Amino acid sequence: MCSSEISGRGDKNTVENGDLLMPKYDQDGLIVAVVTEVTSGDVLMVGYMNEEALGRTIDTGEAWYWSRSRQSYWKKGETSGQVQTVHEILTDCDQDALVLKVSVAGNGATCHVGYRSCFYRKVVKPETGAVRLARVEADKVYDPADVYGKK
Amino acid sequence: MCSSEISGRGDKNTVENGDLLMPKYDQDGLIVAVVTEVTSGDVLMVGYMNEEALGRTIDTGEAWYWSRSRQSYWKKGETSGQVQTVHEILTDCDQDALVLKVSVAGNGATCHVGYRSCFYRKVVKPETGAVRLARVEADKVYDPADVYGKK
Repeated sequence: MCSSEISGRGDKNTVENGDLLMPKYDQDGLIVAVVTEVTSGDVLMVGYMNEEALGRTIDTGEAWYWSRSRQSYWKKGETSGQVQTVHEILTDCDQDALVLKVSVAGNGATCHVGYRSCFYRKVVKPETGAVRLARVEADKVYDPADVYGKK
Repeated sequence: MCSSEISGRGDKNTVENGDLLMPKYDQDGLIVAVVTEVTSGDVLMVGYMNEEALGRTIDTGEAWYWSRSRQSYWKKGETSGQVQTVHEILTDCDQDALVLKVSVAGNGATCHVGYRSCFYRKVVKPETGAVRLARVEADKVYDPADVYGKK
């Protein structure tokens, strides 16, 4: 169990103007966490935390998430070495979202596909037909097979 | 109806490595959109889009969301003048999150509380007791009562 004491919800004014962390979790008990690289500000990934994962993150200064696909706690980097040291956690007006400013250990990448950021593609509006994507990262940082094994 | 043609989901490889926008919507038909300021990279807000809101955003180059609290379409800035011009839309590996790089019109603020960013507070871990928040924006950009009326 984490030791950080996270408050329950207050009224609108307390949540918006107060100085207590009072997260609003969704129907699955999760809050969205936007992860940015502390020096560049680039968005690296979006994860989800339940109260325990948020508490562990505050306790340890390293990012913990709740994996929705695996339905389990997930310390980022446990397998890959891409551990996130958390420099700052921000919350928004209604406290239903977080921003984590992190630095990344290991090979410095965040995405399991091999790119530095999970956001390695941008939307391209075509003249006709389906909306397409174009890569904004030229190269992968690493080959995922080296970290996660051949699939 | 929007005119942009957004594809349905493909298999894992197509979603991760392909060049088609194939968003994954949650059980409410929504995808999370992280909004950053195009020059500074700062995270301004987190919003949610359904397919129609995403299509309108791609069509018009201005950000549309689905308001979960009001259960209606929401063109950001329609009341406040804080319209978001979208310079780039990124999507992540599994295409269940978006990043919008925007510039903000009107008074240049994004948050309905009056701050430039909705993320105007950071988490402070106390020696004892509840986790607290401290403001990272010294002053509000505007008085919300001037825009939304007295409440």
